[in-house]
Amino acid sequence: MKHVVIVGGGFAGINAAKELGNKRDVRITLIDRKNYHLFQPLLYQVAMSALGAGDVAEPLRNMLAKYRNITVFKGAVENVDTQRKTVQTDFGELSYDYLILACGVKHHYFGNEQWEEHAPGLKIIAQATEIRRRVMEAYEAAERTTDSVERKKHLTFVIVGGGPTGVELAGSIGEMSRFTLSKYYKHIDPKLTRIFIVEAAPRILGSFSPVLASKATRALEKLGVQVWTSSMVTNVDANGVQIGNERIEAATVLWAAGVRAVGLGRKMDVEIDSSGRIIVAEDLSIPDHPEIFVGGDQAHFAHHTDQPLPGMAPVALQQGHSIGKNILNELRGRPRKPFRYREKGQMATIGRNKAIVEIGNLKFFGSFAWLTWLLVHIYYLTTFKHRVFVLLQWGWSYFMFGHGARLIVNKEWRFYPDKKRSCIEEER
Amino acid sequence: MKHVVIVGGGFAGINAAKELGNKRDVRITLIDRKNYHLFQPLLYQVAMSALGAGDVAEPLRNMLAKYRNITVFKGAVENVDTQRKTVQTDFGELSYDYLILACGVKHHYFGNEQWEEHAPGLKIIAQATEIRRRVMEAYEAAERTTDSVERKKHLTFVIVGGGPTGVELAGSIGEMSRFTLSKYYKHIDPKLTRIFIVEAAPRILGSFSPVLASKATRALEKLGVQVWTSSMVTNVDANGVQIGNERIEAATVLWAAGVRAVGLGRKMDVEIDSSGRIIVAEDLSIPDHPEIFVGGDQAHFAHHTDQPLPGMAPVALQQGHSIGKNILNELRGRPRKPFRYREKGQMATIGRNKAIVEIGNLKFFGSFAWLTWLLVHIYYLTTFKHRVFVLLQWGWSYFMFGHGARLIVNKEWRFYPDKKRSCIEEER
Repeated sequence: MKHVVIVGGGFAGINAAKELGNKRDVRITLIDRKNYHLFQPLLYQVAMSALGAGDVAEPLRNMLAKYRNITVFKGAVENVDTQRKTVQTDFGELSYDYLILACGVKHHYFGNEQWEEHAPGLKIIAQATEIRRRVMEAYEAAERTTDSVERKKHLTFVIVGGGPTGVELAGSIGEMSRFTLSKYYKHIDPKLTRIFIVEAAPRILGSFSPVLASKATRALEKLGVQVWTSSMVTNVDANGVQIGNERIEAATVLWAAGVRAVGLGRKMDVEIDSSGRIIVAEDLSIPDHPEIFVGGDQAHFAHHTDQPLPGMAPVALQQGHSIGKNILNELRGRPRKPFRYREKGQMATIGRNKAIVEIGNLKFFGSFAWLTWLLVHIYYLTTFKHRVFVLLQWGWSYFMFGHGARLIVNKEWRFYPDKKRSCIEEER
Repeated sequence: MKHVVIVGGGFAGINAAKELGNKRDVRITLIDRKNYHLFQPLLYQVAMSALGAGDVAEPLRNMLAKYRNITVFKGAVENVDTQRKTVQTDFGELSYDYLILACGVKHHYFGNEQWEEHAPGLKIIAQATEIRRRVMEAYEAAERTTDSVERKKHLTFVIVGGGPTGVELAGSIGEMSRFTLSKYYKHIDPKLTRIFIVEAAPRILGSFSPVLASKATRALEKLGVQVWTSSMVTNVDANGVQIGNERIEAATVLWAAGVRAVGLGRKMDVEIDSSGRIIVAEDLSIPDHPEIFVGGDQAHFAHHTDQPLPGMAPVALQQGHSIGKNILNELRGRPRKPFRYREKGQMATIGRNKAIVEIGNLKFFGSFAWLTWLLVHIYYLTTFKHRVFVLLQWGWSYFMFGHGARLIVNKEWRFYPDKKRSCIEEER
């Protein structure tokens, strides 16, 4: 009986586990710091109050309950001993025959980690809740204050980074301020909300074609979002951001700029790229360690293409399947197959009913693209229950022009100072 | 134009506001620490993962948006100057012509406030999330450990207090451990979960008739809950509870015992009872201060009945309406009317499809009572959207025998040490 240890229950980890589930001669242990699998592409909607946490996350135990040979542990992997073939966790040591690393990435502040306090990123549910809290608290503070300069600061939102997440966050705030919130405040006009995307590159949405990026920019402008390109953030503090000689006073700054692989790769004696991703062979294993595979955002896979594959759900999902199948191949005496990515395209929404979609040479924009985006996301949602409830929530909001419950759940639990578990995806 | 200040957006506050909304010659300012109105009777279902936070809470702004003369502020009232007729808040001073206090109650540890850390109560959403986290973390820890005594401790839950909330929490944990969780864990048998209700009085559900309390006790036993009556908790620590000479080792202790009115009443020069509730006249105003009304759990109303009215949703709701109407009466030159409570009965569920209902002399138990409970709660839910989504969630869980997403959202947001706002309902 071979033992496969999977670290991380994201798209790569969960799909590798499913391939190996209920197969003979193999048992699997999946370890994750969180107790849930997250449908990351819709997490920004939790941050923007459009969906609840339960709509985009599913407990790993529920997803894997039907597989007799899979054990799930909520815990943290601290190191890997590649010689003795063991992983060190915060609840003891586990030995493995095969190891699958699928720990993902975390936000990266380019050496200015102190900015995180003022500009949270969006990777896990607790961060989405925190972003929601900050955005809604800003409107509450604007409503309370009588100082007009103070009020302007509270009604200013800066999103650092013009990739899909930055665009989706900015578009949602634009949408919300222009159409949803107006009727709820008596002292302020939410339509005066200033929203900025600050992007270091010469244009936003660098992974998309220039024509779609340009369309997205125009759509954002119509929602009141100003796009600043070629703008490198040089400082972030409690009151705003500095961009070289320019400065924006803002109570709320959100970070959607860089990511970096979690630290486990750096602790191991393996080759990594500048982002900490582990460089993998064609079958997603680590050179010299054929028993260790890496999948998802943590893997640097640069075969068949000029650039390494991007950190996207479809890549991670396909890699997970491929790793699972290759382990089975080997157990059954068959040769491993090299991984090949089947292109699924990429897409992003802007506001309520616009999107950009790019699949190979096929590019489209607008309402039809938005419908495509909607159907694809519903189709890929984790469970049937999620599909039903997300569709209902969206239908409701669409026709009511409302967002979901904009609840502020305070972040501090004053009386419980136990710091053992943090909600941040820490260095592994 | 008279100015009415309402402190607290619970059942009493919100219904007083609605009575005064869009009426001429009056403007209203409603202040709450939270930005939402909470449907408290279903909060235990959020703690038990059966519903999401958005299903039982609605932003106050949404509820009151249609009233032109109502302003909502998220903030805290720190004191009241009854001579100058002003309230001191954390965002400045407001003067009032009429003041409505509807601040509710908070948990009370009978002089042992240090127990709160080990035994959280259930009054606001952040507490429900914390209880959910503790319950689910206990199962995760039990699954990880190899020490059988340690495991037993993790699988032990003590609920202090045998009122409706305690019974509903215990029943839910019983239900979940016996029917839902079994298939999700590989190393433990969740059916071995030990659940205790520890009640100081000679029986649980003291406000119900003895025959219904006895039926409830039997129903709880069938779900694996042991009811300890005449049992006074003498200490609570990180590892369990002490009851005189007896001790239960438990990783999770929940508090559903005493409540006490928030502190504002104690700061003011008014007559309060031993629980800090403000003693009110027949029209719910404070003797000597006809311009100040008190409603809901914060009011001690002891006219027409032997005992003061209990802290229940129907009482608060009716009091809110009565206060609003009496202020209007006075503005229009009509006399005030004394408040009379129209008996709505009381009910509690036990597990999946049992309940007890008592309305005057009408008492019933079992599935029909449960259906009554269900219909009443759906009917009273705050918005039509909540009704639809709660019914859908319940239907899904009922037929799938599952609970909702049992997500653990970690409580600590390590990088954001701002302690200004706490999620606990503090002394007002």
